[in-house]
Amino acid sequence: MSSKPYAHRASRIDSQRAAQLREEISAFHGEYCSVLDRGDLEQWPLFFTEDAMYRITGRENADLDLPVGLVYCEGRAMMHDRAVAIARTQMFAPRYNLHMIGLVRVEAEEPNGILAQTPFLLIQTLVEGPSTVHLAGCYHDRFVRVDGQLLLAERHVIHDTNILANDLVYPA
Amino acid sequence: MSSKPYAHRASRIDSQRAAQLREEISAFHGEYCSVLDRGDLEQWPLFFTEDAMYRITGRENADLDLPVGLVYCEGRAMMHDRAVAIARTQMFAPRYNLHMIGLVRVEAEEPNGILAQTPFLLIQTLVEGPSTVHLAGCYHDRFVRVDGQLLLAERHVIHDTNILANDLVYPA
Amino acid sequence: MSSKPYAHRASRIDSQRAAQLREEISAFHGEYCSVLDRGDLEQWPLFFTEDAMYRITGRENADLDLPVGLVYCEGRAMMHDRAVAIARTQMFAPRYNLHMIGLVRVEAEEPNGILAQTPFLLIQTLVEGPSTVHLAGCYHDRFVRVDGQLLLAERHVIHDTNILANDLVYPA
Repeated sequence: MSSKPYAHRASRIDSQRAAQLREEISAFHGEYCSVLDRGDLEQWPLFFTEDAMYRITGRENADLDLPVGLVYCEGRAMMHDRAVAIARTQMFAPRYNLHMIGLVRVEAEEPNGILAQTPFLLIQTLVEGPSTVHLAGCYHDRFVRVDGQLLLAERHVIHDTNILANDLVYPA
Repeated sequence: MSSKPYAHRASRIDSQRAAQLREEISAFHGEYCSVLDRGDLEQWPLFFTEDAMYRITGRENADLDLPVGLVYCEGRAMMHDRAVAIARTQMFAPRYNLHMIGLVRVEAEEPNGILAQTPFLLIQTLVEGPSTVHLAGCYHDRFVRVDGQLLLAERHVIHDTNILANDLVYPA
Repeated sequence: MSSKPYAHRASRIDSQRAAQLREEISAFHGEYCSVLDRGDLEQWPLFFTEDAMYRITGRENADLDLPVGLVYCEGRAMMHDRAVAIARTQMFAPRYNLHMIGLVRVEAEEPNGILAQTPFLLIQTLVEGPSTVHLAGCYHDRFVRVDGQLLLAERHVIHDTNILANDLVYPA
């Protein structure tokens, strides 16, 4: 085992700049989750670029670098369709969603965007039921700046929790 | 669906100022939760203004704009009484409380205070038991500044979790 | 009950300096947890000073100021041995770990280090299983600065959750 300090391996970005970006990305996550937790699904695609990629996949798939996943959307139009479908299922099986966001880790700031990872929990509560951890995982994001504000160009929602493939899973 | 970027809808406050306030409110939450998690209930009312309002209510009630709720305190004296009652029940059914706080979202800074929302989890552990999500929800707060420091003038604890009306619920 | 504002009791540090340290410690936690959540156990001791102390103990023991605990490591070498042992058990009973970190609270900055407390959840997911709160608790840390970067000189992981003494518990 090397005794090389941990940070020299992990950091591909200046620590002051990383702090700024962490703050900005945290603010983004706060708005994003607020929209989802209020059930305001039609606003969800607006957090992405027009041609963004959104994917939900298990950690096992991600570790094997498999492109497959539970959910795959390319572009806002596909996300919009998905949002409509989910809004419909919510009418039949109502539940409350609450996203808890962990610490943002900025990996790199590159010409094609900012790479960041953020752990999250999606807590679900069925009517008359307790609150449980529905999904635990980590966002692997690529952000770009459009008119000064951050938008997601890519979000890979990589979950630890085992979920059924036919589940119309709520956006994370 | 409009393609208007999300932030133009949500923001009623300059982003730099919002960042400052998020930091300050996070520090407040940290102290608040530390007091509760240590079981130091008599300090709890000190985070509020003398005539503050504290309410715990379900999301269903909140969505319907109903004033009712599980808990309603007006002023520090009522909170103090509640703290004493809860401290007593804790002697008979001991449990550990741990508050996990999500990302602060500052909605507005107005003459009558700072409006902010923050998701939270209250994790409870009974003696010899596992830790479970006892309460999942969101603080809807109004902060005012007294002698330079933030105090809660209003806290609406809006929970997703279904809880029994006669439960002497621990402060969130 | 005194009406003395809460902060005059808690703060032993200037609020601006505390904000800086909270940011820096949050970044540290982010890297630390990322290493553990990826299963990169051999990097774990590198977050500590050479002669650091690492302890996992129940809140009951901690409240009674008992030095005992479930896990006790003195120095990186002991942590390394532990990491190897845990890596081995993970091969036989695979599970995913996800650390969710709460708000950092800086208690003091003293000649012998920075004292901070941070609540955490360790979420575990067994293969084919749901995600559950495996451990809920609070880090009681002492950080020192080595070559400009923070390292843990002491970490007391004080958990609320009841865990079996013979469990080869994953680092928190």
